[in-house]
Amino acid sequence: METAPVRKHFKEELEDLRERVIYMGGLVETAIHRSLESVLQRDPELAEAVTGELEPEINRLQVEVDERALRLMALQQPLAMDLRFIAAVLKIGNDLERMADLAVNIAQGASHLIELPLASLRVDLPLMAERAGKMLRAALDAFMTRDAELARTVLVADEEVDNLRDLIYRQLIRSMVADSREVERSLALMFVARNLERIADHATNIAEDVIFWVEGVDVRHHFAETKPPAAPNPA
Amino acid sequence: METAPVRKHFKEELEDLRERVIYMGGLVETAIHRSLESVLQRDPELAEAVTGELEPEINRLQVEVDERALRLMALQQPLAMDLRFIAAVLKIGNDLERMADLAVNIAQGASHLIELPLASLRVDLPLMAERAGKMLRAALDAFMTRDAELARTVLVADEEVDNLRDLIYRQLIRSMVADSREVERSLALMFVARNLERIADHATNIAEDVIFWVEGVDVRHHFAETKPPAAPNPA
Repeated sequence: METAPVRKHFKEELEDLRERVIYMGGLVETAIHRSLESVLQRDPELAEAVTGELEPEINRLQVEVDERALRLMALQQPLAMDLRFIAAVLKIGNDLERMADLAVNIAQGASHLIELPLASLRVDLPLMAERAGKMLRAALDAFMTRDAELARTVLVADEEVDNLRDLIYRQLIRSMVADSREVERSLALMFVARNLERIADHATNIAEDVIFWVEGVDVRHHFAETKPPAAPNPA
Repeated sequence: METAPVRKHFKEELEDLRERVIYMGGLVETAIHRSLESVLQRDPELAEAVTGELEPEINRLQVEVDERALRLMALQQPLAMDLRFIAAVLKIGNDLERMADLAVNIAQGASHLIELPLASLRVDLPLMAERAGKMLRAALDAFMTRDAELARTVLVADEEVDNLRDLIYRQLIRSMVADSREVERSLALMFVARNLERIADHATNIAEDVIFWVEGVDVRHHFAETKPPAAPNPA
């Protein structure tokens, strides 16, 4: 009966780690939301909140999550599902940290756009951001509730975001070709769209890690093989 | 005297794992080189070699490396430096796999460029590719020889690649503004430059993982804080 408290302690540590990742995910959601709002509202303070506050805090959390996960691996010698959980946490922490970097990119794009003359937004970045945000929320929910089925919906949604990105690129290329004064603004908006698309890719990675954790199945490259080949995209 | 052979076996397994990562890294180098050559030589067969052969093989290797690393963690309960080595292998495998994806992007960019009329290359993509390739080689050498000092040179080199990317972007934006017929071609070349820059970022990640493995120091965000803030870049 000596090992029971240690075991409970380990389970508690795993639970703490899971909550820490969920908290980190919530900060990343906020960072993405604020970065896009800084673009839409031309608000440098929102951009600064992402770059100066949220991203550094997310970086700190990633280092903390990494350290805790590695310590648990070393001290507790977890097996099977617990081991896969810790491996998933290491990867998800990495993806969340990259997503924060992408939100910083968007905030920097906003700072650039603010310097250009005001013009109406003729591409549907809000829809793309909404879709990418939903993917991240579903991936985090799947992680929280250990729900592989929910995680699979994220893999499907990624294609829709790719299609939105392609549509937005085509619209922006057309406007650049039509009017060279639109080049700089269109490039900045393409930059935002590309970063949103990469955010969706990382949400997909998180969903794949949840599936691997729950089912012990590596879906990364198997899933990729069932998708139709993507058309090469110029930018 | 029963445990000695087991210990040796573990060291051999670690060594096998290291060789597997080095082999994977060599394939990634080939993929990057061929993808850029497919751009420069307008050669669809080189592009196809990257997309159809190298990238799927690299994906398979990543799954294998992941599985072996997780199995060693579970069965051998490694401590300290060995544990950090396995954690580094998991991350490096991930970075190498992403680099292969980026080489596929470049090969797809080549396929797109081949459809456009022949024109002289007025931006120094070969120099950028050479620098990014050197960074990957140095990161892999540092991993092979456990050399944190060599790894640190990669972190410094990343800034040069970023500067090259900025220069190439400025040149391409100028040509788009000057002649709207140049928009499509310039965007495709920006796409190649951006993917080379991201390849260099992943080489930097690998170098950071080597430092963490060898020294037990997490340099990721500390190093970032000593760099001057990057100028926001429109695309």
